[in-house]
Amino acid sequence: MDDKIERPAEIAAQSFKVIRAEMHEMGYHFAAHQQAVIERVIHSTADFEFADLIQFSPAAIPHGIAALQRSAPIVTDVNMVRIGINQRRAQGLGSTIHCYVGDVSAEDTAANGLTRTAAGLHLAHEKGLLANAIVVIGNAPTALFSVIDLIEQQGVRPALVVGVPVGFVNTIESKDALSQLDSVPWFITTGRKGGSSVAVAMVNTLLRLAHGEPSEAI
Amino acid sequence: MDDKIERPAEIAAQSFKVIRAEMHEMGYHFAAHQQAVIERVIHSTADFEFADLIQFSPAAIPHGIAALQRSAPIVTDVNMVRIGINQRRAQGLGSTIHCYVGDVSAEDTAANGLTRTAAGLHLAHEKGLLANAIVVIGNAPTALFSVIDLIEQQGVRPALVVGVPVGFVNTIESKDALSQLDSVPWFITTGRKGGSSVAVAMVNTLLRLAHGEPSEAI
Repeated sequence: MDDKIERPAEIAAQSFKVIRAEMHEMGYHFAAHQQAVIERVIHSTADFEFADLIQFSPAAIPHGIAALQRSAPIVTDVNMVRIGINQRRAQGLGSTIHCYVGDVSAEDTAANGLTRTAAGLHLAHEKGLLANAIVVIGNAPTALFSVIDLIEQQGVRPALVVGVPVGFVNTIESKDALSQLDSVPWFITTGRKGGSSVAVAMVNTLLRLAHGEPSEAI
Repeated sequence: MDDKIERPAEIAAQSFKVIRAEMHEMGYHFAAHQQAVIERVIHSTADFEFADLIQFSPAAIPHGIAALQRSAPIVTDVNMVRIGINQRRAQGLGSTIHCYVGDVSAEDTAANGLTRTAAGLHLAHEKGLLANAIVVIGNAPTALFSVIDLIEQQGVRPALVVGVPVGFVNTIESKDALSQLDSVPWFITTGRKGGSSVAVAMVNTLLRLAHGEPSEAI
């Protein structure tokens, strides 16, 4: 079975070749940066439907790249997203990655009527981490609604909100609400789909682009 | 926006109600344990295609539940899977969760011609952790091929292999090879789809079932 074990760089290069060929056959054409984000999400999910679902506010990708090049902190809703983000590439830009869902007490959530992920985002805000940050919501619509509240009611201004929660209750509504903001750049996936793997793929593409690396690098 | 923030238990109950209703409309009928695994994967991905893609070897779910009730270790290929597995429920059964991808040196991989994830599985084997374990491959076909080699060539016998890597190169082949084993129980997703979120949903369902909890519990 050793013949099946190829070098990671070759596996990645071949994978992106297949993805691009199939996207081309399906008639998709995107600008280079958008293509980089979309193809990496497809690489992580094997789901070409994301080519139709991913939407960006105007210039959201350049905003995200520039923020990372200024060492923007990255704040996530859940630990699966935190740990999936490439720490070496983030550190190389001086960016730190944060998730406070595990630091939230039962009292915090009960007192404020918040879910744990939403309370984690509020804790990040109290620590001053959301301003000019890349805020990444891969799981919880409640966390995304909290971020939107902080933007609208408290004037918090992240550099970019990656809002791609997955699910069946309030998920579409949370992403619709994000996409109506014009005060903050955003990425969303329309509809129910999204998730930790999608969020991670998006941020890892931005980190590659911020480093000036080809998007299919390992 | 506070009206959108509901209690997590209510959100989960409503989500599973929607999933079951839509599966029923689509004509899907599964035995209770299989339904529990499939609906939690759909809950994590919003992708009903998994109802067609998930396959189990005979009695794989009872084997997995019994192993967890005997405190089987859980060994994962990547840290996103490790951290997504519910640690509280695993600890409650005496199960520990392991991932060695971060402990592999460049020399280990170069010397053996292995990817980092595959070398991580070999390291787990050297530590005696694969026998009677729940082995969970959510990302890397190379890691799954290594597990299959250890089963076939060294007689290693995990209690269950959850083999759901995602991707475009060798992924389908790795899952086909796993599904041809009759010496070890397995879960797979046929085709390209799979991934960390799918693997996590499957193992978290087994942990719930091993605790005797309703599958839609938080």
